[in-house]
Amino acid sequence: MVDFQNILDAITLEANNTLDKGKIASYIPELACADKNKFGIALLDKNGTLFSAGDTKEQFSVQSMTKVLTLSMAFDLLGDNLWELVGVEPSGDPFNHLSLLEQENGKPRNPLINAGAIVVSDILVSKLKNPRAEFLKYVQGIANDSSIGYDVSVAESEKRTGFRNYAAAYLIKSFGNLENDVETVLDFYFHQCSLSMSCEQLVNTFYIFANRGKCLQDNQHLSLSQIKRINAIMLSCGFYDEAGEFGFRVGLPGKSGVGGGIVALLPDNFCVVTWSPGLNEKGNSKLGLQALEKLTTDSGLSIF
Amino acid sequence: MVDFQNILDAITLEANNTLDKGKIASYIPELACADKNKFGIALLDKNGTLFSAGDTKEQFSVQSMTKVLTLSMAFDLLGDNLWELVGVEPSGDPFNHLSLLEQENGKPRNPLINAGAIVVSDILVSKLKNPRAEFLKYVQGIANDSSIGYDVSVAESEKRTGFRNYAAAYLIKSFGNLENDVETVLDFYFHQCSLSMSCEQLVNTFYIFANRGKCLQDNQHLSLSQIKRINAIMLSCGFYDEAGEFGFRVGLPGKSGVGGGIVALLPDNFCVVTWSPGLNEKGNSKLGLQALEKLTTDSGLSIF
Amino acid sequence: MVDFQNILDAITLEANNTLDKGKIASYIPELACADKNKFGIALLDKNGTLFSAGDTKEQFSVQSMTKVLTLSMAFDLLGDNLWELVGVEPSGDPFNHLSLLEQENGKPRNPLINAGAIVVSDILVSKLKNPRAEFLKYVQGIANDSSIGYDVSVAESEKRTGFRNYAAAYLIKSFGNLENDVETVLDFYFHQCSLSMSCEQLVNTFYIFANRGKCLQDNQHLSLSQIKRINAIMLSCGFYDEAGEFGFRVGLPGKSGVGGGIVALLPDNFCVVTWSPGLNEKGNSKLGLQALEKLTTDSGLSIF
Amino acid sequence: MVDFQNILDAITLEANNTLDKGKIASYIPELACADKNKFGIALLDKNGTLFSAGDTKEQFSVQSMTKVLTLSMAFDLLGDNLWELVGVEPSGDPFNHLSLLEQENGKPRNPLINAGAIVVSDILVSKLKNPRAEFLKYVQGIANDSSIGYDVSVAESEKRTGFRNYAAAYLIKSFGNLENDVETVLDFYFHQCSLSMSCEQLVNTFYIFANRGKCLQDNQHLSLSQIKRINAIMLSCGFYDEAGEFGFRVGLPGKSGVGGGIVALLPDNFCVVTWSPGLNEKGNSKLGLQALEKLTTDSGLSIF
Repeated sequence: MVDFQNILDAITLEANNTLDKGKIASYIPELACADKNKFGIALLDKNGTLFSAGDTKEQFSVQSMTKVLTLSMAFDLLGDNLWELVGVEPSGDPFNHLSLLEQENGKPRNPLINAGAIVVSDILVSKLKNPRAEFLKYVQGIANDSSIGYDVSVAESEKRTGFRNYAAAYLIKSFGNLENDVETVLDFYFHQCSLSMSCEQLVNTFYIFANRGKCLQDNQHLSLSQIKRINAIMLSCGFYDEAGEFGFRVGLPGKSGVGGGIVALLPDNFCVVTWSPGLNEKGNSKLGLQALEKLTTDSGLSIF
Repeated sequence: MVDFQNILDAITLEANNTLDKGKIASYIPELACADKNKFGIALLDKNGTLFSAGDTKEQFSVQSMTKVLTLSMAFDLLGDNLWELVGVEPSGDPFNHLSLLEQENGKPRNPLINAGAIVVSDILVSKLKNPRAEFLKYVQGIANDSSIGYDVSVAESEKRTGFRNYAAAYLIKSFGNLENDVETVLDFYFHQCSLSMSCEQLVNTFYIFANRGKCLQDNQHLSLSQIKRINAIMLSCGFYDEAGEFGFRVGLPGKSGVGGGIVALLPDNFCVVTWSPGLNEKGNSKLGLQALEKLTTDSGLSIF
Repeated sequence: MVDFQNILDAITLEANNTLDKGKIASYIPELACADKNKFGIALLDKNGTLFSAGDTKEQFSVQSMTKVLTLSMAFDLLGDNLWELVGVEPSGDPFNHLSLLEQENGKPRNPLINAGAIVVSDILVSKLKNPRAEFLKYVQGIANDSSIGYDVSVAESEKRTGFRNYAAAYLIKSFGNLENDVETVLDFYFHQCSLSMSCEQLVNTFYIFANRGKCLQDNQHLSLSQIKRINAIMLSCGFYDEAGEFGFRVGLPGKSGVGGGIVALLPDNFCVVTWSPGLNEKGNSKLGLQALEKLTTDSGLSIF
Repeated sequence: MVDFQNILDAITLEANNTLDKGKIASYIPELACADKNKFGIALLDKNGTLFSAGDTKEQFSVQSMTKVLTLSMAFDLLGDNLWELVGVEPSGDPFNHLSLLEQENGKPRNPLINAGAIVVSDILVSKLKNPRAEFLKYVQGIANDSSIGYDVSVAESEKRTGFRNYAAAYLIKSFGNLENDVETVLDFYFHQCSLSMSCEQLVNTFYIFANRGKCLQDNQHLSLSQIKRINAIMLSCGFYDEAGEFGFRVGLPGKSGVGGGIVALLPDNFCVVTWSPGLNEKGNSKLGLQALEKLTTDSGLSIF
């Protein structure tokens, strides 16, 4: 029996003692002012018992971690038709994601890179009457927490400066793979990125991926087969061009965000969320990666 | 002494007798309805004498041919500082122009591809009080013809469907190589593309590139050194990924447009404009290329 | 308790009844003459009990599946220094593997693509006195089967026609990432690809990756941490540009070869090898993929 | 009437007074030991009168300049069938020439990049009984100088270290665009690169491209149409990814070599060869470019 609390405490101690805490994302003011000394880790085991250490109740900008949740909602709505619009292969290279998109006629490699999440956003805009409100309700429902909300100032900041996302969206549109107009799709895209959540709120939400689709309240979200497929995509594509490295070092499906959060999970076993705002040069949380590597090493638990 | 009229008549006869006239650009309705049977060729020799055959007084959409004229105006305003914002090398490959732009940090290869002309448009928007009106006046001035004007319905159509140009503009903006906002720049860009001109109006305008910068009214536009440089860029970059082929087969600096026009010139000798709306698979006028190859073969005149 | 024999029988029945059996690799005569109607599947469970159905005792050309074994031997010899010479990220795209190699200065993306396996071969050539003999002995040792051998005619055929592998090797050498001369390295590379083994011999060998490094004779090969890392690489990179798809549909680490074999495994649970010479358009065994998808669906066993 | 001698003297003075003479190619010892202070310029005017200044009688390694001469010989032998095997478009980018070659199925962009010259070499190997001897005789014949010869130590050095050329040749061969075996083709390729010639010998040879195919002895080489086409290719493709820049700054067809030589010419007017071993960062002779820019500026002579 693994003593999770003990491991989380040791991880937090090590994190606090690490001098090089990485570099905070600075492209919008709302992220730039995060406190580099924050560190939190929260874990739900297979029985739904919570273990936590550090700053696990403080909210931060979830950013790309929500790509898993918009994917889940779209997969639920469209079923396997989804894969005609977006692929399931790793993109390999960060800097040429537009060039891959161009070569591959506007079909993004996978739903966890920006281009793919824009296509997923377009689907939700098409299928939902009020995408912003309904997506928020969907997340609140899984987390059983109606206090979760968008950080509108983050969304507005990204809208003003997210030129590369506009470029990706227009390129996709030029290939006919975007049904709605770019402004509408990106408005939703920037909002879903801007969710503010704490480690504990996140681990409650992502718990469904470790628990065969059942949330803590025992409601089923997605089918088991769909849950497994999303886990497979997280493993292959959850860390941009560091996906192979994360599988290699940590050995769990997961997803990171530039706000400094990382979620990872072992099916039928546990779900864990870390938060530390300092990033490595690939854009993933430096201390988060260190924490998760220590977790799987010390517990001996990984999918491999 | 070359008998230009005789050659132009023979070219026109051959063009009219050619069964395969290429394929008309169909991405906007205004271009799609062009008449494939139209053919015109107009030539000004070194003395400013006009030779013409076929439909040389009918106006058509000038499209990319104006990229040479916006370049001229920007070169006049900025001098060699222009080359910090846009290069002078051929782009090689059409389908990956966004990928080159991405690799090269938003500095377009040259001013005669769309991305480069967008940067040039941004410069004119920054430097001019009323870019649309002033650019039109600039062209009217060189041509000595105040009847030249924009085709606003063409500009509006391109604005509604030119998603790839939006993608390029936003990508350039993401690298900080666009001063103004994308909507303003592209509004000007789409308008300058939409000029309606006849072969005769065009040959009057482009005559300056064959005549050391002097127009038919003997006014100097640009310096001789600048004229030579623009001619060099036309030779290297005037026909997208068919630039080498055009130099190889025709041997003159030139520029084509998807409206079916082509301009070409031999410095100190002649300037010629052809019009035939049917395009080859590279997007250049099929009969126009055939006409220009015959012109240089029959006259023995080329830069090589 | 899963009834593996029942599942394997059902899989074999389905395979035999499938009309479209894919297309046999034809680039060398030795592969082209394989019999498309052959199908075999062999599985070792966590207790080392063998289950099998179909043609599991017939030998075929192992091809790229051995890349996992040369990797294992090199990882054992070099430890983590290996990762300075070759990466652990998926390559994404098959057709441009030389272009990625060029962009990334001759460091292959991972050891399971040709370029990576050439670098691994170079390491073995440097470290071993008699690479061919010692590698064969290494495989025979894990499999506890001294009858395993090279098919020299396959190796010779590949040597005569493997121009793209020569191109990759010389490109790597041009970046200084190949210590030995190209001919020597490729001679070993083509030989290790040419191993002839049956499904049963293969499953005996690859069992170590499902059994924490212990072979059926209970000898330890590599450390548990190294075994996990190789499994992670198999998951990310084992199926070229279909790696994401394999993870998505099958959910197991694995590796395919153009001889029609596929190995896959669930750590602490089972190792399975399929053989069917017909390939899909991505170069992976068509019926093998179908078989493995059915295996994980029917058994409910996968890493996700 | 241009005073060429005066201009050449001024150019040589300026070259000798320039402190930054560029960087000598160092990848083989034979080039690395060149003397950076050497500078020569030789020019033949339309009457065949020679003007020269500096070190114009000293031989140096001609390197890529001979690509024009192997092209000429192959064009003579194959006529326009040549263009089925190699293109006429600029390659745009130096560092990815293998990736373009891969994308375009082994058909090199043009005959003046390495990959293209390898295909041209293959043609000569197929068509000639004794390629080395016959090509040398061809050059000696145009130059009317039987003292011209290969520098075998240069050829041997390149053969030992030219791994990237091996990679290109094998990649071309993998696409079926190389008839002979790679070793034989590259042996000829490295020899033709290794010709040792002086500025005066070179200008005598390349004079045919300025003189409608007639050499100083009034013998016709190639047809006028072929001469023009080779000039067009030199203009588009003669300076790798600096071709546009050379056209822009100098305005003449030309070709450079890493030995520090550059040839350039104005049809019906003059042919000029410069030599200075120091290269700029694009691999073209730094003082040579400066000299040619001064020549066209001071003389007012260029094709534009």
